[in-house]
Amino acid sequence: MAPTRLESAEKEVRAALGPALQRFGPDYWRQQDAAKTFPTEFFDVIGEAGYFGTFIPEAYGGADAGARVAAVLVEEINRAGGDAASVNAQMAICRTLVLHGSDAQKQRYLPGVASVDIRFLTEAATEPDSGANMSELSSTARRDGNGWVVNAGKVLISFAAHTRLMILLARAEEGTTLFLLDLDEADERVQMHPIDLVANRMTSSLFIDNLRLPDSARIGPAGEGLACLMQGFVIRRVLAASEAIGNARFLLDRSVEYAKTRKTFHQLIGVNQGIQYPLVQAYAKVEAADLMRWDVLELVDRGEDAVPRSAIAKVLASEAAWETARAALTTFGGWGLASDYHIERKLREGTVYVFNNLLMNLIADRALGLPKK
Amino acid sequence: MAPTRLESAEKEVRAALGPALQRFGPDYWRQQDAAKTFPTEFFDVIGEAGYFGTFIPEAYGGADAGARVAAVLVEEINRAGGDAASVNAQMAICRTLVLHGSDAQKQRYLPGVASVDIRFLTEAATEPDSGANMSELSSTARRDGNGWVVNAGKVLISFAAHTRLMILLARAEEGTTLFLLDLDEADERVQMHPIDLVANRMTSSLFIDNLRLPDSARIGPAGEGLACLMQGFVIRRVLAASEAIGNARFLLDRSVEYAKTRKTFHQLIGVNQGIQYPLVQAYAKVEAADLMRWDVLELVDRGEDAVPRSAIAKVLASEAAWETARAALTTFGGWGLASDYHIERKLREGTVYVFNNLLMNLIADRALGLPKK
Amino acid sequence: MAPTRLESAEKEVRAALGPALQRFGPDYWRQQDAAKTFPTEFFDVIGEAGYFGTFIPEAYGGADAGARVAAVLVEEINRAGGDAASVNAQMAICRTLVLHGSDAQKQRYLPGVASVDIRFLTEAATEPDSGANMSELSSTARRDGNGWVVNAGKVLISFAAHTRLMILLARAEEGTTLFLLDLDEADERVQMHPIDLVANRMTSSLFIDNLRLPDSARIGPAGEGLACLMQGFVIRRVLAASEAIGNARFLLDRSVEYAKTRKTFHQLIGVNQGIQYPLVQAYAKVEAADLMRWDVLELVDRGEDAVPRSAIAKVLASEAAWETARAALTTFGGWGLASDYHIERKLREGTVYVFNNLLMNLIADRALGLPKK
Amino acid sequence: MAPTRLESAEKEVRAALGPALQRFGPDYWRQQDAAKTFPTEFFDVIGEAGYFGTFIPEAYGGADAGARVAAVLVEEINRAGGDAASVNAQMAICRTLVLHGSDAQKQRYLPGVASVDIRFLTEAATEPDSGANMSELSSTARRDGNGWVVNAGKVLISFAAHTRLMILLARAEEGTTLFLLDLDEADERVQMHPIDLVANRMTSSLFIDNLRLPDSARIGPAGEGLACLMQGFVIRRVLAASEAIGNARFLLDRSVEYAKTRKTFHQLIGVNQGIQYPLVQAYAKVEAADLMRWDVLELVDRGEDAVPRSAIAKVLASEAAWETARAALTTFGGWGLASDYHIERKLREGTVYVFNNLLMNLIADRALGLPKK
Repeated sequence: MAPTRLESAEKEVRAALGPALQRFGPDYWRQQDAAKTFPTEFFDVIGEAGYFGTFIPEAYGGADAGARVAAVLVEEINRAGGDAASVNAQMAICRTLVLHGSDAQKQRYLPGVASVDIRFLTEAATEPDSGANMSELSSTARRDGNGWVVNAGKVLISFAAHTRLMILLARAEEGTTLFLLDLDEADERVQMHPIDLVANRMTSSLFIDNLRLPDSARIGPAGEGLACLMQGFVIRRVLAASEAIGNARFLLDRSVEYAKTRKTFHQLIGVNQGIQYPLVQAYAKVEAADLMRWDVLELVDRGEDAVPRSAIAKVLASEAAWETARAALTTFGGWGLASDYHIERKLREGTVYVFNNLLMNLIADRALGLPKK
Repeated sequence: MAPTRLESAEKEVRAALGPALQRFGPDYWRQQDAAKTFPTEFFDVIGEAGYFGTFIPEAYGGADAGARVAAVLVEEINRAGGDAASVNAQMAICRTLVLHGSDAQKQRYLPGVASVDIRFLTEAATEPDSGANMSELSSTARRDGNGWVVNAGKVLISFAAHTRLMILLARAEEGTTLFLLDLDEADERVQMHPIDLVANRMTSSLFIDNLRLPDSARIGPAGEGLACLMQGFVIRRVLAASEAIGNARFLLDRSVEYAKTRKTFHQLIGVNQGIQYPLVQAYAKVEAADLMRWDVLELVDRGEDAVPRSAIAKVLASEAAWETARAALTTFGGWGLASDYHIERKLREGTVYVFNNLLMNLIADRALGLPKK
Repeated sequence: MAPTRLESAEKEVRAALGPALQRFGPDYWRQQDAAKTFPTEFFDVIGEAGYFGTFIPEAYGGADAGARVAAVLVEEINRAGGDAASVNAQMAICRTLVLHGSDAQKQRYLPGVASVDIRFLTEAATEPDSGANMSELSSTARRDGNGWVVNAGKVLISFAAHTRLMILLARAEEGTTLFLLDLDEADERVQMHPIDLVANRMTSSLFIDNLRLPDSARIGPAGEGLACLMQGFVIRRVLAASEAIGNARFLLDRSVEYAKTRKTFHQLIGVNQGIQYPLVQAYAKVEAADLMRWDVLELVDRGEDAVPRSAIAKVLASEAAWETARAALTTFGGWGLASDYHIERKLREGTVYVFNNLLMNLIADRALGLPKK
Repeated sequence: MAPTRLESAEKEVRAALGPALQRFGPDYWRQQDAAKTFPTEFFDVIGEAGYFGTFIPEAYGGADAGARVAAVLVEEINRAGGDAASVNAQMAICRTLVLHGSDAQKQRYLPGVASVDIRFLTEAATEPDSGANMSELSSTARRDGNGWVVNAGKVLISFAAHTRLMILLARAEEGTTLFLLDLDEADERVQMHPIDLVANRMTSSLFIDNLRLPDSARIGPAGEGLACLMQGFVIRRVLAASEAIGNARFLLDRSVEYAKTRKTFHQLIGVNQGIQYPLVQAYAKVEAADLMRWDVLELVDRGEDAVPRSAIAKVLASEAAWETARAALTTFGGWGLASDYHIERKLREGTVYVFNNLLMNLIADRALGLPKK
């Protein structure tokens, strides 16, 4: 609806994606959602198109196309009624390896991630008692000879049962430390139990009992795991914002289409300001969130601090998408609840983004300079 | 949490319900929801306790306990983590028969409804092209001899596959007319197709092809179907409000409990105003909606016009419940998405109530006297 | 607009007030506001009608009519376009004396307060560094012989320059202590400086330099000043809520009237849902706040704890009034800014009620049982 | 607070403005507001700095610096606690003359407008019965010989008593037509009556009784007045958005400063999330509105249609500023009401921007393509 000023690279992404998105339309995603399955076919098509290497240097088999391409990609997938979560994960999780991994780690794994050979879909960070506080883990990594012995209990780990690689956070003597866990090499010492969620995130809890890992599985210096991980957060927030914007635009597209064609009482429902105004308010906020997202990427390009602003982009986008879902329910009435119309699915997927208190704290601190307790 | 001033009758309902609600706890309802099944066991227990006759005169086997008892009942079921939709339907749908049915109809059916023998769970009103506008049906009832031939296409009919009786709206020569459809007597001329919804409402579309009905199946005068039906709307709105209030209170109870026991960063999350204030705002609105609901019932008791105020109660309650669900997501973070915690289920069930534009129009007209187009 | 169920006493108040409110219409109040003057004429008429003794026992010349009468009174004044702040103060401030004063204090002052002879309009509580925290005053009362020497610096004291009596909070050795300050007996040791506010609250800062007060000026036990004062807070919150509700209803009355008579583009603006819906939403919230207010008074009548619920009533009413003012601006457009239409004045007066964080904390603690830091 | 990426031209404006804004601080504006006076001294300083010619070609004495400079200027004035309305008017109203005036008109007046010699501060458009519908005027311009006879009744005309030039809309036979009214040449046939507003907009009603105007006073073709005027709306909305953003940033600056220095209960109020979160939410929205504003100017620069997006910018900015004012009231408590703190003044000035239904309609139509009645 709105003019979007994309550089040609991003325009190309949209054009290139078109056929895939047409092939895997909303009904494909409705079925994945209903069956709680991993969208393997779609995932492979996107991977074969080369997008998984978006953040991977060419030396390791990637395209190094950068965050704008990734942002367009996940937005477009969601805008077409899909769910970009798995693609987002495969593109972005590996950035920690790109930035902090050893050359041997990169050589071994990144080419496979860039192609569709190796799924690298998750970080095992959250713990039952940690909440979002990753600085106080009860999972431990103890040095043992020239390796490590890891004990961990993790929860809400997305795609855990569908990935080969994951990044594992554990507390070593030096502090939080990252490890690359190759599940092809793990045995029954790694246990998973599925956690059923409102959106199809294929989440599990994860228990690791005295697993030995070689020191070569460590990513970055011991004790600097959190710092390493946090370097990826700006891009992660931009991509989460992009997913939310894609969802919101799908909801807007559908709602506007419905409002322009559906009649009650002998007139199009879209003539009613009671339908129009919630859509307009939502639309205005989506457009604003969209600009903020690109603005963050400009800051990144210029090497400026984008941390607080990336938090703003995420907050604006998730709020805008939530408001859009509500406006869509108003537009569709009872049909908004029916899975055939995809509104309810996008509403459910939108729940993933709407708890942002930690980001609110970050903005208060970093953007406004308000005091902390 | 709040002082509630109930007459003794209502207190008794709460006390009497206790054991049943303990037996059928949130996990029972999570399972029904996941399997999309009708809660037969629970339904029967409530029926055996005599609640299905709440609006049925004693002469027809009911208890005639009245709307307050019904309101307490559905609220308590939802507040305990359940879903009162089926109980609500069984209690309230038959009111149209009580008010407008013939003595023969009442004699034949009401005693069975009051007990658990006959399910009377739905009205077939909504049509593909009518939206919420029930004054312009394309379903028809044509007089044929001393009976009728009915052709109908209906959508979003709750519990259609689980009920024996339903009220059917069709357009006769005289105008909208109600019929009592006994599905035990229908044949393949009545077809149903399930519609999958975000909440477990067991909804179907319904197609009726040249079905003959005797004139004794007609409820109320031909042409006055809408007027007859609308006499039930005040109570229906109060009960919908009560369901929403029950949901909101379940969400508040759980959120407060979680906020009082869950720690992050070494302190209870409930000390944070970022958790407290959304819960307080939601709580205040739920309490207000609660008062409005009782106020409507007082108007009803006094024989005053409660139509606009019943719309207000429904709007306030559904908005309060929606806001509460959002506050609960903020409180629970990622766990709010997990079906084990029941937050996401109540969020989904809350979608049923949040499109209220027709009620907004009604309030504008009837309470504020604003002009119409 | 809405049905209001008032006992006959309250109906009489409305009837009795009618002529006074017609005599002192919105334009009278616009002029007081513009000139920042005390509404002496109006104040005296209300006093002569006997309302100042609403909380004063008959033994001291009052009518002891109670909180419902007071609530109706301030609401009706505001609903007619007036500003009940001075009447509210004169009725309610003296309750502390009624509840905790000595018989001598009551004998001397209450009959004059009940009539229009003595203005008793304010409490000097707030201090430059205390914010709303009245438990840590820097104003002091030092025992000196059988009396006290008071030093105080107070800010934002309403009506200070228009009252004869005020209640003064100061910190004695025993803790916060209340004194009755008779400004007829004070000299240049009490200095006032006006503070200009957005609403016509006639506020001053107050500086007291070594003022001697006899012990007979003390109200209640030394050290228990805050406890004494807080006993009046439930009624004060109800009256503040009632003022806000009165303001909101004035705004609604005017907006609906305007929407029903004003045309643009050849049709009444009130047919537009863009005008209707904000008014409906505001109206629904005002009605809900209204019920909560009466509910608090019922709790008071039954001797139950009304503290948390009085906070809810105040929060709901002030939010509803603020939202109503915004809806009125939408309705009136540019004319909403013109003092001749009174919308902008009610908006300004509404600012007095909208900072409620302390009440939010109170509700979190007392109604929801959430933990404190 | 936020990084702002301005071209050097705009940075220079900010630097150049510094001394003037320091000289005319918030207290200067508080006094203008209290006395309802025109800020002559400030106005002249800005004019002498050359800013009045921002939209005037160099050939007519202007600087032709463009909309970005104007946007920065009005934002900075407001952000410093001032009120840019008069400066905004002097810069922007003359654009209609620049775009549609005759060379003679431009020669005669524009150099004086670019300097401080001629005030050109208003358009007389709004009529008592027209609302915002400028397509149906009752003011008339009748051809008479080679000139016109004008009869007009206009309301809510800003700065009418402080300007020499104004643009007058009247209905000629051909349709809405613009005239340039030079009040130095008008006589008692032009009457004005002040209209008191909540913000210091120095507004009047205007009555014109059989005023003769030469045809050389006409701007643009007869009948195309509305079209001519509307060409200025994109820039006008951007400047209104910029004013609102400036106001919001003033409120945020003050609120953050206060939250970082004010203590209650022995700690800075800014540590409370009940203070932080409303400021963070407001801040995020202000930043988003800011981006939308620059985005509109980029569209303008590229010659693309910016009409719907300019409406979005205005809506976002005015909503953000309104929300910021509310957050500032929460931060400041009672002091937010005191004119000495300037919060209440900015709240009042913000009322000017918050009725946007016509823009909502425009966005629904032009951006979303929703149907019209």
